[in-house]
Order: sequence, then structure tokens, then C-alpha cells
Amino acid sequence: MLHLIGLGLGNEKDITVNALEAIRTKCATIYLENYTSILCCSAEKLEEFYGKKVTVCDRAFVESDGVDGMLTQAEKEDVAFLVVGDCFAATTHSDLVLRAHEKNVKVKAYYNASIMNACAGSGLQLYNFGKTVSLCFFTPTWKPDSFYDSIKMNNLNGGLHTLVLLDIRVKEPTVEALCTGKKIYEPPRFMSVSTAARQMLYIENEVRKEGVYNEDSMVVATARVGQEDERFISCTLKEMCRVNAGGPLHSLILVGTKVHELEENMLKHYRAKPEDFYPEGEEPESQYLEEGVL
Amino acid sequence: MLHLIGLGLGNEKDITVNALEAIRTKCATIYLENYTSILCCSAEKLEEFYGKKVTVCDRAFVESDGVDGMLTQAEKEDVAFLVVGDCFAATTHSDLVLRAHEKNVKVKAYYNASIMNACAGSGLQLYNFGKTVSLCFFTPTWKPDSFYDSIKMNNLNGGLHTLVLLDIRVKEPTVEALCTGKKIYEPPRFMSVSTAARQMLYIENEVRKEGVYNEDSMVVATARVGQEDERFISCTLKEMCRVNAGGPLHSLILVGTKVHELEENMLKHYRAKPEDFYPEGEEPESQYLEEGVL
Repeated sequence: MLHLIGLGLGNEKDITVNALEAIRTKCATIYLENYTSILCCSAEKLEEFYGKKVTVCDRAFVESDGVDGMLTQAEKEDVAFLVVGDCFAATTHSDLVLRAHEKNVKVKAYYNASIMNACAGSGLQLYNFGKTVSLCFFTPTWKPDSFYDSIKMNNLNGGLHTLVLLDIRVKEPTVEALCTGKKIYEPPRFMSVSTAARQMLYIENEVRKEGVYNEDSMVVATARVGQEDERFISCTLKEMCRVNAGGPLHSLILVGTKVHELEENMLKHYRAKPEDFYPEGEEPESQYLEEGVL
Repeated sequence: MLHLIGLGLGNEKDITVNALEAIRTKCATIYLENYTSILCCSAEKLEEFYGKKVTVCDRAFVESDGVDGMLTQAEKEDVAFLVVGDCFAATTHSDLVLRAHEKNVKVKAYYNASIMNACAGSGLQLYNFGKTVSLCFFTPTWKPDSFYDSIKMNNLNGGLHTLVLLDIRVKEPTVEALCTGKKIYEPPRFMSVSTAARQMLYIENEVRKEGVYNEDSMVVATARVGQEDERFISCTLKEMCRVNAGGPLHSLILVGTKVHELEENMLKHYRAKPEDFYPEGEEPESQYLEEGVL
């Protein structure tokens, strides 16, 4: 049997008791999927907590032959496949379920929190959210704006909130690696809420100009949700360009025009304070701007 | 401190290890909110597992003075407030956070799975979902169709999926209770996917007639997600009128017109089998229909 386990958003103890028991008492082999999100504790910490070895697998493993080997193993014994957040957060995990079904391998899912529901910790109500969108790191020549169409088409009417998931770049091969075939990777990059705000404003002000949102639109930064130092910071999109929300992972919520009184009160409660901003000119994005991206 | 704890969707062991430790080692008093969803194990089972007393509280408690007492207590000691699913699933829980803040009571949230993310167990991808809607039990004189507008306005464009949350009626006073002030409650009612499908088709065919969906639209029944006997069943909306998905809780997903290949394969995998249907004429809704509701 394949035990598909969501680890939740915080540390090694944000796993459910049921999932922990399955790992400790049933599973001989434990894989950790570590590329669609990031774990806030080390794999060693997990091993210590489980009392078992954990094999970290990357995108190549999940999308290739590694999975076949894992499923062949799961035909005979209990195998755990750990995913940060919820176990169905990424498309690849549905694919895993299908491939398991094809091999007649039973799958048991252990659901957990995902940013897709934990964003409600901001006080904005889940049923007031529309479609979730993703924002990629822009480059001087590539500035995808399909997120703008989704907001315009699906969320603008009815005044819905939009959860904006921000780009994560881990295990990206360097240019040298691409040329030589060597396994060299760029340092990991995680988009911050300030970069996200700058990119969103760039698309509105310089590219689309359709008024889907503007500098005064309210947004909420969500940072390290589910961790000890979780933060929610609300301000305008213009202000967000200078917010320092601390370490990754960040997401951004574009607040809809229809805001319930309770939501309004929560937005006030999380309103940005002077100490939440980078001193002028010291934003890490200054460099990003100098590189000619925006 | 107020520990706001999501219990997840399954049994007593679907709580996270962090939350369990907080209950066992820190909290003297434990409240269980038991009206916005249903627990799939008894409160006694929770008490046994925690080794502590659990006080079950209803809507009146949460929305009234009971909460004040709880927060006053939380000023001095650690108090746990348990919620089925995720801790921010219902509006009342944000209200609780605000009231705690007003009293300077610290709040720690323990996120968990909610049907809002676990519906992805169906194989339909969360980022292809639009706004979530709710469907109430119709009566001969009251058939609210605001869900129809949301689907039309927010989810139809872009071909998004719609999660339809189905009505739960617990602790509803009887007519006698309303007249006499006695505390008598109707038996709990949970809307089934077959009732939901009938109501949705009624609104399309008899009331709105705008073609937002039709008898051939694909839907997925989700039943008891996160529990041992979890089911996902896909079929057309017309077929769903006769599907027996077993005990509560149910939700329905109206599949969008834009379906990814992987999603298509999952829909095939979960396609309704002959044994998933009620024998003709034996649907429990027959009575519902005879009562003149539809």
C-alpha cells in the first residue's frame, strides 16, 4: 500500500497522529517529496522523529522511473510518500495516484493543511475567494500575465479575494549546467510579497492598464503560515512593495471589493506597522530592478 | 492563551501531533465546537484519547456569552477550542480570534485539512476551482438560487470547477419548540449528493433556464472525505440524482468545462458503477419530492 501523507505547514509535529502511526508501525520505506514546497525542518529532523530513514526525492524522481520502483515496492509492502502541506496540493501527486491504480496498488491519503485553506488564518473567509493564481519570477524578456486574466475573468465580478501563490525556484540548473550537463544548481529562490507586489503593479500600470486592481488595492501578505513566526500583514499594493515579511514562504492575497465587516476588522488588526517596512532604498528588490527586470 | 485547533476530517487521530501535545500537556479546559460540521467520532472518544474532559458547545455558546467566559479563562490559562476540519473553516472562528485580540488573549492556530482543500482527493486540481458555493435544503416555499449566480458569474468563464457545500441541519428547534420555548430539536439532517443534484437541476430546468449547467454536466460526489470509507463518485448530474453515496457528510463538485487530461483520467477512475445507484423508485428523496418540495 502507498501511504500518501501530507505533512502540514509547520514543523515535524504538524503531521497527524494517524499518519505518524502509519509511518512508525507500518512503513519500511519513506520518501519525502521536496520540490513543490519547502519543509520548515530538515529531513534529519523527520528521521529522528520517525525513528526511520527518509529518502529525499526531487522532481526528476517523481516524474520518472523512481516512481515506478516505489510503486513496485508498494505492491508488496507499505511505503510512505510524504508531501509538504496537503498530499493533493500538486498535480504530480494525482498522477502518482493514477499510476498506483494502474498497478493495483492501494492508496491511502492522509490529508493535512495546505496554504489553499490556511490562508483563511488572515481572517478572509475561504468562501469569498475565487480562483487561485500563480505568479512567476519575471525576467527581462519573460513577464507572463495570465494571472491577470484569471483575476479579471473569475474574481473581479462578485468582488472575490484572490490567493496569489508565489514562485519557488529550487534545483534549477545553472546556465553552465545546461551547457555542460553537470549537476550544478542555482541557489534556491523564493518570491517575496514585495517582489510580487512590484510585478503585479508593473503588469497593471505598464502592460494591461485595465484597472483590474491598482496601487490602492488592499492586499494581505501571508508569511510562514502554520509556523511559530507566522505573519499576516495587510496594506495597499503600493505599500506592499516595501514590506519586509521575513523568510519564506510567502503568498499574497488580493482582497476583493466585497469585504465582510468581520473581514474588515481582521484587516485592521493585521494592518502594517512602520517596523514592517524596509527602510527606503534598502529593499532587496532594488537589485532586481537594476537588473532591468522591471 | 487560546489554542484554536482543527481536528481534521477523520477520527480522533487526525489531529496533528503539535495540537495533541498542546491539549495533553498545556490545556486545563477543552471546548469542542460541534455545529458547523460533524465529528466522525464521539466526544467520549476524544476524552479517552486526550485523557481530559471535553465540553461540547453549540451555536448559542459560540455566538453568545459562553465565549466571553472562555476568553476570560484564556487570559489566565491555556484553553483549547476544537473545531472539526480546519480551525478557520467557519466565520464564527474568525470572530473568536477578533474577540480574543480585543481582550489581549494570545491565539495559536493549529491548521488542519478542510473539505475546501481535501476535495482535491477527487483528482480535480485545487487551482482549477473557482468560488465555493453552498446549497440549502429547499422547502415548498423557499428555494434560494444564489449559488447559481456565483457559478455563472465566477466559475463558468474559464471552465472552473465548483465545490458545492451541502446543507447541515443540527440542533434546529422544532415548530413546537419555537411556539413553546421548549428545547426540542429536529433530528439532524445532512444533504445527500442525490438531493443536491435534484435541487440543482430543478433550479436550472424550472427556474433559471440559462444553461449554466445541464443534465449531462459532469459532477463528483465526495462522501466522508478523510474517513476510512471515503468515496469519490463521478457521473452526470442526472445520474447523480440516483447515486447512493452512503452516510454523511457529502459535498458535490460541479466539474468545469476545462478538464486537464490527468483530471479526466481521475474522473474515469471514479466513474459510478451500477452498485452505486439506488434501485429505481427507492431513492430516499422520493419522499422529499412527495412533500411538494420539488
